[in-house]
Amino acid sequence: MLKVGLLGAGRIGQVHAVNIAGHTRSTLVAVSDIHAEAASTLAAAHGAEARSSDAILNDPGIDAVLIATSTDTHSDLIEAAARSGKAVLCEKPVDLSLDRAQRCLEAVADRAATVMIGFNRRFDPNFAALKASLLKGDIGKPELLSITSFDPAPPPVDYIKVSGGLFRDMMIHDFDMANFLMGDAPVSVSAVGSSIVDPRIGAAGDVDTAVVTLRYGDGRIAVIKNSRRAVYGYDQRVELLGSTGLLQAGNMLENTVVRSTVDGVVSGKPTYFFLERYMPAYAAEWDAFVGAVLDGRPQSVTLADGIAALALAEAATRAARTGETVPLQG
Amino acid sequence: MLKVGLLGAGRIGQVHAVNIAGHTRSTLVAVSDIHAEAASTLAAAHGAEARSSDAILNDPGIDAVLIATSTDTHSDLIEAAARSGKAVLCEKPVDLSLDRAQRCLEAVADRAATVMIGFNRRFDPNFAALKASLLKGDIGKPELLSITSFDPAPPPVDYIKVSGGLFRDMMIHDFDMANFLMGDAPVSVSAVGSSIVDPRIGAAGDVDTAVVTLRYGDGRIAVIKNSRRAVYGYDQRVELLGSTGLLQAGNMLENTVVRSTVDGVVSGKPTYFFLERYMPAYAAEWDAFVGAVLDGRPQSVTLADGIAALALAEAATRAARTGETVPLQG
Amino acid sequence: MLKVGLLGAGRIGQVHAVNIAGHTRSTLVAVSDIHAEAASTLAAAHGAEARSSDAILNDPGIDAVLIATSTDTHSDLIEAAARSGKAVLCEKPVDLSLDRAQRCLEAVADRAATVMIGFNRRFDPNFAALKASLLKGDIGKPELLSITSFDPAPPPVDYIKVSGGLFRDMMIHDFDMANFLMGDAPVSVSAVGSSIVDPRIGAAGDVDTAVVTLRYGDGRIAVIKNSRRAVYGYDQRVELLGSTGLLQAGNMLENTVVRSTVDGVVSGKPTYFFLERYMPAYAAEWDAFVGAVLDGRPQSVTLADGIAALALAEAATRAARTGETVPLQG
Amino acid sequence: MLKVGLLGAGRIGQVHAVNIAGHTRSTLVAVSDIHAEAASTLAAAHGAEARSSDAILNDPGIDAVLIATSTDTHSDLIEAAARSGKAVLCEKPVDLSLDRAQRCLEAVADRAATVMIGFNRRFDPNFAALKASLLKGDIGKPELLSITSFDPAPPPVDYIKVSGGLFRDMMIHDFDMANFLMGDAPVSVSAVGSSIVDPRIGAAGDVDTAVVTLRYGDGRIAVIKNSRRAVYGYDQRVELLGSTGLLQAGNMLENTVVRSTVDGVVSGKPTYFFLERYMPAYAAEWDAFVGAVLDGRPQSVTLADGIAALALAEAATRAARTGETVPLQG
Repeated sequence: MLKVGLLGAGRIGQVHAVNIAGHTRSTLVAVSDIHAEAASTLAAAHGAEARSSDAILNDPGIDAVLIATSTDTHSDLIEAAARSGKAVLCEKPVDLSLDRAQRCLEAVADRAATVMIGFNRRFDPNFAALKASLLKGDIGKPELLSITSFDPAPPPVDYIKVSGGLFRDMMIHDFDMANFLMGDAPVSVSAVGSSIVDPRIGAAGDVDTAVVTLRYGDGRIAVIKNSRRAVYGYDQRVELLGSTGLLQAGNMLENTVVRSTVDGVVSGKPTYFFLERYMPAYAAEWDAFVGAVLDGRPQSVTLADGIAALALAEAATRAARTGETVPLQG
Repeated sequence: MLKVGLLGAGRIGQVHAVNIAGHTRSTLVAVSDIHAEAASTLAAAHGAEARSSDAILNDPGIDAVLIATSTDTHSDLIEAAARSGKAVLCEKPVDLSLDRAQRCLEAVADRAATVMIGFNRRFDPNFAALKASLLKGDIGKPELLSITSFDPAPPPVDYIKVSGGLFRDMMIHDFDMANFLMGDAPVSVSAVGSSIVDPRIGAAGDVDTAVVTLRYGDGRIAVIKNSRRAVYGYDQRVELLGSTGLLQAGNMLENTVVRSTVDGVVSGKPTYFFLERYMPAYAAEWDAFVGAVLDGRPQSVTLADGIAALALAEAATRAARTGETVPLQG
Repeated sequence: MLKVGLLGAGRIGQVHAVNIAGHTRSTLVAVSDIHAEAASTLAAAHGAEARSSDAILNDPGIDAVLIATSTDTHSDLIEAAARSGKAVLCEKPVDLSLDRAQRCLEAVADRAATVMIGFNRRFDPNFAALKASLLKGDIGKPELLSITSFDPAPPPVDYIKVSGGLFRDMMIHDFDMANFLMGDAPVSVSAVGSSIVDPRIGAAGDVDTAVVTLRYGDGRIAVIKNSRRAVYGYDQRVELLGSTGLLQAGNMLENTVVRSTVDGVVSGKPTYFFLERYMPAYAAEWDAFVGAVLDGRPQSVTLADGIAALALAEAATRAARTGETVPLQG
Repeated sequence: MLKVGLLGAGRIGQVHAVNIAGHTRSTLVAVSDIHAEAASTLAAAHGAEARSSDAILNDPGIDAVLIATSTDTHSDLIEAAARSGKAVLCEKPVDLSLDRAQRCLEAVADRAATVMIGFNRRFDPNFAALKASLLKGDIGKPELLSITSFDPAPPPVDYIKVSGGLFRDMMIHDFDMANFLMGDAPVSVSAVGSSIVDPRIGAAGDVDTAVVTLRYGDGRIAVIKNSRRAVYGYDQRVELLGSTGLLQAGNMLENTVVRSTVDGVVSGKPTYFFLERYMPAYAAEWDAFVGAVLDGRPQSVTLADGIAALALAEAATRAARTGETVPLQG
């Protein structure tokens, strides 16, 4: 039974708490948060204790920590947790600074195999099935990847300001998905971004709509589309053209009801919120983490994976600003 | 917090145990089963006690029982539980004998409002959304209902022999769905049944493929199709034609991946097993039960509903045997 | 080059005229109609002559006639055309009277191989593809057939009065589809019908909504649903459950546009009118007829097929009236 | 009645001949081709004469010409036809040389309103319905356009060598579609292209897989994906995200049959060939041309539209070669 400390009792921490407590091979022992009350409430709901982060990190009875705090604390906490010998599952992104993230990787080098980064979408049943089909050879050699990732509505501008920008905050998931599916790092990045959804986002120096193109050494291409607004719901699709076929993974719908009237044939919308869409993914992610720790295997989404996605986000940010194709070293 | 005793630790009891234990307003206190070990194992997994049924029924600290035992015990247990003042959620069918079920209803008459019958499909998000759309008037007056209900594979013939037959065992869900959606009892039943899937089913005196037609007093019609074998998965669909439109509720698919090759465009199959398809329905059903008990409301699927479905099953059994249309009294 | 006379210049005659004139192996020579002007107009549009029916039937230069006149003239015209040695494509139904149709078959007996009945749906690309898949063995042995056939709106009551009733006028297509797909004649028919769409239809002694169940000698079952009103369009679907799978053929849609908004995901409706849906079927039907005549093969949809469908319509009419299952001789 | 001369009796000329001859307001008078026999055969099939191009262009009895010859003759023929006062429908592209095309526009300046360029996809019922929905305001302001355009298989390398390259030969349709849907010219173009489908295409100096991103002055973005190989069929889709919704137009399928077995749920593939997919578009295009000429209206797809698409193709060719974003003047 894996004894777990949860750092961060916010929205995403609460999702993880349910999965930690509900898993047959893990127990939630303690919760910390900068808001003491948030920690207490969440701990109580799952029969755990509220503690400080330090107390959790220093408790030899705790085997693993899940880091769900604000992004600026991730690198420090990963290092501290690794130092005290704990397995780590850290929410994405590793850091807003690529430099800082790389130093973190160096700092934990010999413990890196026990650190997992929370790119939950790899565990989405639809994307995972697409990858499995690809690996089975169902479409031959993948050649052209297309990722559509639209949020239902933009976050508050105050959040945008500290988010690191669309490429680091939102598209980072899609960079990881491209790395996951293409099984290689691209050699160049080009990007076009605009603020057309909300002018305040542009005023804050960010974009809300963007298209990024990745080119791979063997000529393969990936294109990622992001928008901060798709009023009909959370729109998350992947499409991969290969030499012998096409794979597409679509949205989860509210329900399967179809209504046909004189006004048309109406079916259910995509689920509106990322937590509805990705709830099974978070559970599967936790299960993969627990399995790796208890069975002594390295984590499936590594700290290096987290840094690879961050490097793409940084390059895309630059490409969108300059209009130039940004080369990447392999 | 509702304190619950679970009678029956078999496959469906185990599903209910998870929902009882996981619900924020209920606790699983005790589990019984004719196989003591099954009760112990299930109780242990949820921090509950294994006891005898009698001990559960006589414990004044238990507020509600969930009856998930074999069908032939349902009526007795409903009566006993009602006598000791407990709220009851009993798995379908109420009984294989319509007479016995009606006597059960009489026996618990003044407590009937606290008994719920487990027609889980009413709580399936798809069928529930279809019903909600109907109630909103989206298709005007419903006129022609069509229910498709195919199992992936027939059960063992030994089960068939004690099942009460396809109409009581399998189509009873569809009879309840018809009652649920049409909001009225039919005035006549006609039925055609065959054993073409497995001749041993026919040798056991049952059918494995059947079509039943229900006629309502105002001329509306419902048709139900059942087969014990749909090799591609659990196929559960409803379609309702109304004066201003059509509503259809379809299957849940394994995943949303679509693969296009020279061989065709392949999408995910329906989930194979009823537990996968109806897991959310079981959780929603339990939530409805808990809400009704704790908030003092009558149950949403009554013992009378259970008997109404059973009456249709009995009439259909007769209609299939004789080839005659069987009239029903209102 | 097949020289063709067209008897009947109404709506369906006009459809046939386009196909006759447009086919590379047939020419439209002459058109007749009880309304001389209709014949003249249609003939002129295709470079043909307007003539009397007798003139067409007696012209040795005409190889084939297409009978698209009113139903009560079909049997006489088939007999006359066969007597003068012409190949015949006659619109369905053969006759409203099963007796008369059977006498027609006797009368043309030795020429029957040159008479085709216009069950156009057999040539619909979707239903034809379903049949081809069935013949390939894609779903093993067919066991349970389901045909949905809804018109967008009921015809005028004056038409209803002379139509022979829903079973002979509308469901006859579905009886032929059942015969086409099941490859056998049923042994019994049961039927439920109501007038709930338009009370004037009921007042005229007909039904507007009906469900018919057919039972085959080997236990297979077919169910046919008809409604005179589906406001969203012409709804024509077939679904066939077999021992190793399910085949479904769906509607043709107006277009492939899908619109996702806060109000839902809206896709195109089925084409509204039978001519839109079945235009390719009429062209393929004519092509099959021409091929059979010019290449000396018997017609693919025989006069006996037309009578078989009519016999089912007559049995269903009786079954709906009496509520009894009507046996059929093989 | 519009009297029409057809220049070019190749594959696409044959398609046009059927539409010209079949239209109620146009007649095919004459056909020319550099292969005299091709002209004769096609002319004979439609009751027209085979002539030289000059004879057609100089015949005062001919009102309009359809230019379906090889691309290098388009500009000359447009100029000659305009000089002799004929209305012109010219296949795309106007020319492989942007300069030459612009000189053509200058040359026919005062007759330009009578010249139509054959961007047939604007008349595809699906894309036309998408545009109509957009104009109705169904998705508010369009913000992010995505065009997928995959051919089933690459053309022969000999064709590739004279084609002007993927951007001028294949993606030119998509550039026109972007212009059609966005209603504005982009301010910059970026492009990534590879030869991964067939190395001989790369050896010939062309690409077979490409992604182009267009940026508009108001920040809107369009992305176009092309591949020369989609083994499952002709894959032509458009997707447009707007401020209040998403519009998608999909492929036409072979048929609507769906087969569910243990191996999955298989539906029809996209039609394999562009002529199957766009046959209705060619007919609608011709109808629009005839209507404009006979009713004295300017053509709906102008020579300037043809040049605008060509300008994008030229810019994209440069962008793909240099990796730089290419600015365009408005």
